[in-house]
Amino acid sequence: MPGPGAVPEAVPGEGPGGPAPDLLARARLLVAPELSASLVRELERIAGRGAEQLGAGGAADGPLLCVGAVLPDALRTERLLWFHSVNAGTDPLLAAGPWPAGALLTRTVGRMGERIAQYVLGWVLAECQAVPEYVAQHARAEWRRLPTELVAGQTALVYGTGRIGGAVAGLLRSCGVRTVGVGRTARTGAAPAGFDRVIGAEEDPDAEAEELAGARWVVAALPLTGATEGFFGAGRFAAMRGATFVNVGRGATVDPVALEDALRGGGVRRAVLDVLPEEPAAPGDPVWRLPRTVITSHSAGITADEDVAHEFAACWEAVAAGRRPELAVNTGRGY
Amino acid sequence: MPGPGAVPEAVPGEGPGGPAPDLLARARLLVAPELSASLVRELERIAGRGAEQLGAGGAADGPLLCVGAVLPDALRTERLLWFHSVNAGTDPLLAAGPWPAGALLTRTVGRMGERIAQYVLGWVLAECQAVPEYVAQHARAEWRRLPTELVAGQTALVYGTGRIGGAVAGLLRSCGVRTVGVGRTARTGAAPAGFDRVIGAEEDPDAEAEELAGARWVVAALPLTGATEGFFGAGRFAAMRGATFVNVGRGATVDPVALEDALRGGGVRRAVLDVLPEEPAAPGDPVWRLPRTVITSHSAGITADEDVAHEFAACWEAVAAGRRPELAVNTGRGY
Repeated sequence: MPGPGAVPEAVPGEGPGGPAPDLLARARLLVAPELSASLVRELERIAGRGAEQLGAGGAADGPLLCVGAVLPDALRTERLLWFHSVNAGTDPLLAAGPWPAGALLTRTVGRMGERIAQYVLGWVLAECQAVPEYVAQHARAEWRRLPTELVAGQTALVYGTGRIGGAVAGLLRSCGVRTVGVGRTARTGAAPAGFDRVIGAEEDPDAEAEELAGARWVVAALPLTGATEGFFGAGRFAAMRGATFVNVGRGATVDPVALEDALRGGGVRRAVLDVLPEEPAAPGDPVWRLPRTVITSHSAGITADEDVAHEFAACWEAVAAGRRPELAVNTGRGY
Repeated sequence: MPGPGAVPEAVPGEGPGGPAPDLLARARLLVAPELSASLVRELERIAGRGAEQLGAGGAADGPLLCVGAVLPDALRTERLLWFHSVNAGTDPLLAAGPWPAGALLTRTVGRMGERIAQYVLGWVLAECQAVPEYVAQHARAEWRRLPTELVAGQTALVYGTGRIGGAVAGLLRSCGVRTVGVGRTARTGAAPAGFDRVIGAEEDPDAEAEELAGARWVVAALPLTGATEGFFGAGRFAAMRGATFVNVGRGATVDPVALEDALRGGGVRRAVLDVLPEEPAAPGDPVWRLPRTVITSHSAGITADEDVAHEFAACWEAVAAGRRPELAVNTGRGY
């Protein structure tokens, strides 16, 4: 812990270094009820105090330090010094109500790019190695060699050329896949790491259509914005010639009717959907009946307990040293 | 085609350059009946002649050029100029009878290291991503997040530090896995590419046991020799603490009773067996009832049609240029 000299003239609860040490020292640690017992123990160890359950009751007095996914309205007060989000995206937190003046908001980015990349490569190789088919064949006690594919030399189109798209492409490339990044608009300069080629969908639709026709894999890793809603529609699906479509971005970037048509027509060979327009999908949702499709319950880019603990500890260290944590969210801008 | 001057004084059917051009020019092309039609077309294109089916009949006269996996006894004559094996291992071919004097034997190595590496990584990531469990859950129209694992930071022991073991380790490492190679005996000098550490099982059994205890993955890629039969026995399995065991080497390197005990006791978490002591496994074979095991019908290191065509073409080019093909087998030594 730094001496008082390390603390700038900070408004309590805000300022470059986050909460003032004296307030933080006597803050109560509230943790969301869904956190695992082992994670809570780890948070207690880092914060050096016992945890109480964060709930809607909110009767606790004194300054508060919270760790969770949502902030109950009763705690949206000036008593909140610091909220550490277990998620990377804090839009829902900020959209649910006014953020308490001066409260620090930090987030867990985790190893999302690496996790999503391993998810994509895992499903790609599982298809190439006929994993589901071999599991089913094994259950029948049947010895038969099934067709498999070497992924080397195939082409993958990765939509999204940022940190996550780049991690996906880089890992696919380690298996010899040719990787083409597609951004909504072209980037200038060299292709980002991980990509053999990058094209802008707006500037060069012909190149995109040609690559879609030659692609064995089309990976969607786009955020949801006004410009990407329904981005994967009839036009793009019609250009595919047997690609497997993997969505690790946002469900609403896909037009579900167009995807179904392409699956039925064969333009899309298989689909692996980690995200859907409406989550969770109800048992009666027609999405479960799409042919040759697997839905994986938004699990590709999870933040694990170890990520939460690791990044909370990093934030704690920064706050204790009077620095603003790198994972702090500008609550005005929203990111 | 080289002029006569490029051909050394060669005994017909043998010699540094393989078959003499005049004999090869009028040789009949016989292909095994199991080859696909598209592969046969490709072989016909390379050899510049139509193919006939290679069978036990063997009434054809004139010099012969054969492509297949087995050589019928009727064709083990001096008329055989050249046999191109569609497999990498030619031991069965040579063991089945005396090799015709002077006949060239070439083989298809293919991209076996790369294929086996993608097989191993595919099954590793499929387990980490819960691919079989998600496929089953999808069939029940159930939305539930299943536990997944990030493979980065885990340890894999790879038995066999040659070309195939090295390819497996190198690919695992691209996903952040710590790779430990285990050879039967220690190598001197730096660890081969792909490995973070290499140990010799004979020289350093303590180090091996310690690594087995910490390993999340144990990959067996050992050839079958007198020294490796039953190599994975009670001792090694007892040292494992929840590793998944993947065998891409030879089935007889594993003591099946010891493996079953370890699976039932939990020392081995899961098993993926591409090879078995007796192949194919009959439907009643107890191996199908091993818990948490998948058998994949010796498919990891297949040679694909494209490999056969590509390497037959390379051999053809060498022979046509009067060179001994790199893929020629010394039929006396057997490799």
